[in-house]
Amino acid sequence: MRLLIIGGSDAAISAGLAARQHDPSVEATLLVADHYPNFSICGIPYHVSGEVPDWRHLAHRTADDLDRAGLGIRLGHRATSIDPGGHTVTATTPSGDRVTFDYDRLVIATGAVPARPPIKGLDHLGPGDGVHQLHTMDDTFAFLNSLDQRHARSAVIVGAGYIGLEMAEALTTRGLAVTVLEQLDQVMPTIDPELADLVAKHLSERGVDLHTGTRVATIAAEGDRLRVDTDRGVHHGDVVLVVTGVRPDVTLATSAGVRLGERGALAVDRRMRTNLPDMYAAGDCAHTYHRLLKRDVYLPLGTTAHKQGRVAGVNAAGGDTIFAGSLGTQTVKVFDLVVAGTGLRDETARQAGFDPVTVATVADDHKAYYPGATPIHVRVTGDRATGRLLGAQMVGRSGAEIAKRVDTYATALAFEARVAEIADLDLSYTPPLGSPWDAVQLAATAWGQGPGR
Amino acid sequence: MRLLIIGGSDAAISAGLAARQHDPSVEATLLVADHYPNFSICGIPYHVSGEVPDWRHLAHRTADDLDRAGLGIRLGHRATSIDPGGHTVTATTPSGDRVTFDYDRLVIATGAVPARPPIKGLDHLGPGDGVHQLHTMDDTFAFLNSLDQRHARSAVIVGAGYIGLEMAEALTTRGLAVTVLEQLDQVMPTIDPELADLVAKHLSERGVDLHTGTRVATIAAEGDRLRVDTDRGVHHGDVVLVVTGVRPDVTLATSAGVRLGERGALAVDRRMRTNLPDMYAAGDCAHTYHRLLKRDVYLPLGTTAHKQGRVAGVNAAGGDTIFAGSLGTQTVKVFDLVVAGTGLRDETARQAGFDPVTVATVADDHKAYYPGATPIHVRVTGDRATGRLLGAQMVGRSGAEIAKRVDTYATALAFEARVAEIADLDLSYTPPLGSPWDAVQLAATAWGQGPGR
Repeated sequence: MRLLIIGGSDAAISAGLAARQHDPSVEATLLVADHYPNFSICGIPYHVSGEVPDWRHLAHRTADDLDRAGLGIRLGHRATSIDPGGHTVTATTPSGDRVTFDYDRLVIATGAVPARPPIKGLDHLGPGDGVHQLHTMDDTFAFLNSLDQRHARSAVIVGAGYIGLEMAEALTTRGLAVTVLEQLDQVMPTIDPELADLVAKHLSERGVDLHTGTRVATIAAEGDRLRVDTDRGVHHGDVVLVVTGVRPDVTLATSAGVRLGERGALAVDRRMRTNLPDMYAAGDCAHTYHRLLKRDVYLPLGTTAHKQGRVAGVNAAGGDTIFAGSLGTQTVKVFDLVVAGTGLRDETARQAGFDPVTVATVADDHKAYYPGATPIHVRVTGDRATGRLLGAQMVGRSGAEIAKRVDTYATALAFEARVAEIADLDLSYTPPLGSPWDAVQLAATAWGQGPGR
Repeated sequence: MRLLIIGGSDAAISAGLAARQHDPSVEATLLVADHYPNFSICGIPYHVSGEVPDWRHLAHRTADDLDRAGLGIRLGHRATSIDPGGHTVTATTPSGDRVTFDYDRLVIATGAVPARPPIKGLDHLGPGDGVHQLHTMDDTFAFLNSLDQRHARSAVIVGAGYIGLEMAEALTTRGLAVTVLEQLDQVMPTIDPELADLVAKHLSERGVDLHTGTRVATIAAEGDRLRVDTDRGVHHGDVVLVVTGVRPDVTLATSAGVRLGERGALAVDRRMRTNLPDMYAAGDCAHTYHRLLKRDVYLPLGTTAHKQGRVAGVNAAGGDTIFAGSLGTQTVKVFDLVVAGTGLRDETARQAGFDPVTVATVADDHKAYYPGATPIHVRVTGDRATGRLLGAQMVGRSGAEIAKRVDTYATALAFEARVAEIADLDLSYTPPLGSPWDAVQLAATAWGQGPGR
């Protein structure tokens, strides 16, 4: 069975590995547009910061690993068209030739591309001018080259989502003066403003010049530097980084007749099948089944890409498995803070038809008497009518086990727990690492003691 | 309603607080045998080590806190008899007087006492001779006094359970040469030998002279020091600490006719009711409902004492709530390692009638490219026939979020998850703090790929 996979990142590699694990006779070929298969794009900020000096280390697996796993990786092969009837894909090779690949099953894992916000100047300024987006290794090399060539001592980052803030840390760590401009009234639009404020404060303490509620109108060259005009003033930087989210890369698939689903992403069922025969899609190019909402959403995340890729690969290889779904669980480290969340927030829960109540608590990560205790800010959202847990968000210090504490909520959400059941969980405790009632449980107890519950 | 509580530690205080929260009209009186109500006995090693210089900080709450919460704390009141028919408890006061307390409802929270292993000499040597057990604040003061008076430069610890190892760390941190003697062939009998070996190695690296499979026969004074004779040689120390577990303190309750349950602990139902009317028991003196085994066991843990105390308090105050049960979730820090476990192991699962399979994996705590990644050793136990998760154990470096990673398994156990469902969980990921497939999930996936599954 010939399995063809278009893509070389998390979903694509997972699909290939899972297919061959399910059936070692599968011939898996991956058409990889660039030369960096299986690279961790989540790791880019840590190469930019200097914490990962060698970019090669960002690969989840080496070319040898992939070879040993029996994946036929075709680097520099950009797929240009799919013929669903003929079961072929045409691609251009690094030398510019056109080659056609037959397939029995096809997995589309073309990922996402950076969103391009409507900023004047963005269409004609690019890496050569010090204006960058950041999604691939080639983007990374171009950006690092700009930092070097332009002797950059300052940067303006447009967008205060996860990547914007990770890059703010990375560039500050490199010694640059960093300005962050965000159109919304808060950083990190996926968390509640009360927690976002803690992150904003921390960024400021670390010297980041943060401006929320600030819409960028124009980017322009001004001498050797770049000038960024907003509705609330002018900023300058040696480089500008525009990181305002991503959109699914679906051009190739839609040309072949693949139907779109949520937010312009490829429509797939929970077996990751598209509407076309023998054709699957997975990762950031596809929409995502939400485990709690029980409907499709667009949530491009590395964890999801791995899981969807595995499901697509197993099914393409003749197995039968379904994607359990995402809860949108995320975490990010921003300097010394860690932010994490899972499930719904008040606003998203209300939109989904729940009657949400969100309760905020603060509790130490471990017993206050043991040195180093730090506060964890928790916001738990539950459904007033049923008492069901809908989601949770946390902010605390790096080292306070924030990321893995949110996993307790994520696990409880997967089993449709009520908030009250969190307090009954038998969680681990030792004074240096926790409390007899963990912060996770104190938050749930506080939720249960709110008015009307 | 007059609620009388015998005890002053976790279960007792939780019962009092919960009762008054449930019904603020409850008059709650606590008979506390010593002068240290609501002290964290789990914190004792960190006072001995010097990390918590002021012993007063080990109190979960101050006397003022307890007063404000409306708890009538009678310090130095040792309950001597219960009259279940007359609904009275007699106690001796600090001045030696006998006083009688009426109650409408009674909560027995007398805790546990250190087990006294059959070691020759232990019956006539005591704190005055530098031979100690360690369970209360008074024990702690006596031990610290011995360290001081005897100018102790070396200690022999008998018992390599949680407290033995925490004290080995504490005394090493104080600068003493520490010998640990353990009768069993491994440290920490609640984890598998493969993981215990990692802990033993770490102890040795930190200079602890560890002897497992070594039975202590005699403790004797020899000049200014103490001599400990074992079946495999002789050891000397300036002090000896015997920490070989605890047994429930049930003398008072059984005299009154309270029936015993598992392992000589007080028998209670899931509402924490004893067999006698209006009489509850909670904490280390009572047995514990096991959530997975669905039967009673003896598992004296601080977390459980808090939960049982709360259930007893609410029910005593006229509410109706049940104890969800324990999974035996535990964690301990030993120098730079953290050990954690939840649920059953191969051996305990087999005894309970399951057909367990345990699979060992090692995975990094976070992406290897980001600085500081360390391996986590995981052992997952599942039921061969049903695929159900039965338990998990982990060992890794402090800082690797071991304690809160085991909570994911504990949460999944509470909802009777299958092992395969762990891999489907949407857990958090960012390169400095995790992996797209968390170590917790890789372990579950490896379990699923074992022979016959």
